[in-house]
Amino acid sequence: MSLASAVHLALPAWAWAVDGAARPLATAEERMALVLRLVEANIADGGGPFGAAVFDRDGRLVAPGVNRVVPDCAPIAHAEIVAIAAAGQRLGTWDLRSRGEFELVTSTEPCAMCLGAVPWSGVTSLVIGARDADARAVGFDEGHKPDGWAEQLRERGIEVTPDVGRERVADLLRRYAEAGGPIYNGAGS
Amino acid sequence: MSLASAVHLALPAWAWAVDGAARPLATAEERMALVLRLVEANIADGGGPFGAAVFDRDGRLVAPGVNRVVPDCAPIAHAEIVAIAAAGQRLGTWDLRSRGEFELVTSTEPCAMCLGAVPWSGVTSLVIGARDADARAVGFDEGHKPDGWAEQLRERGIEVTPDVGRERVADLLRRYAEAGGPIYNGAGS
Repeated sequence: MSLASAVHLALPAWAWAVDGAARPLATAEERMALVLRLVEANIADGGGPFGAAVFDRDGRLVAPGVNRVVPDCAPIAHAEIVAIAAAGQRLGTWDLRSRGEFELVTSTEPCAMCLGAVPWSGVTSLVIGARDADARAVGFDEGHKPDGWAEQLRERGIEVTPDVGRERVADLLRRYAEAGGPIYNGAGS
Repeated sequence: MSLASAVHLALPAWAWAVDGAARPLATAEERMALVLRLVEANIADGGGPFGAAVFDRDGRLVAPGVNRVVPDCAPIAHAEIVAIAAAGQRLGTWDLRSRGEFELVTSTEPCAMCLGAVPWSGVTSLVIGARDADARAVGFDEGHKPDGWAEQLRERGIEVTPDVGRERVADLLRRYAEAGGPIYNGAGS
């Protein structure tokens, strides 16, 4: 066992090179489509069926994130956590608000942990694909979220847009589970 | 701007070398005292006034964690997140339950994000120093936590022990704020 000087959460090279990374994506649907390409590439690379990305207000990719819980031995390496940290490190700030307006697009409604991370990131918009129920339907635990969380985010000045490409994402989750992809859950799931 | 192949969350060398790291610490109070040494060293090194650590059932340190939000440009680099990820990467698993029983000791009640991370980690015990109110009293936002979160953790098989060394930790938080330490908060705080 080595005593690491840092925890590493992977950002595979293919994540930065995902189709659409080099041009502004004008609509939430186009940005979700990029995130779904991240999900597909991540599943092929041994990761979980979840992706996320931070975009600037022109729709340009600032940072991708993919779920690397199993390959990275890091239960906190959810796509949103990775994307938020990568965006901060790329822009050199712990608070994205200091650099302008940014949007977090996530393939599935954030779990309790990732929901808690959203206000800390400084994004001003959260775009969500599949619902909590779609993740639970294939066996993923989403944790305990506070009642009224979407309203709480809005009160903090964070816009919330659900159901963007929901059916496509839910279908991806079902196909992952049917193919025997690992359903890595925490205690009491 | 560089396109990183990983997000890095720092584990400074002093964190692994903290006094007490080399011997089993029999009581929760001793383990909290180690965590408070992490907090003090972290403040001196430019980090936030929060620390955490994962211990095995013999009370041996498995992984330390310190809050590196500001120096690492990572709003998700809370002490608990870093400790959980470091423990998983040290033991080579995304689920600590697969390696035995582990305890997470944290200097202050976890924020909404870190609370969500606790079940994902596989720890079976959570030991807490200062209360949510103590962090809020000096200006830190703790986010929106679900009602009854301690009971929810207990239902998942995770023991929760609050108020271990509470006054000492609360005093540290007050001294940090009085000395002008940065109060880095997210949106709507």
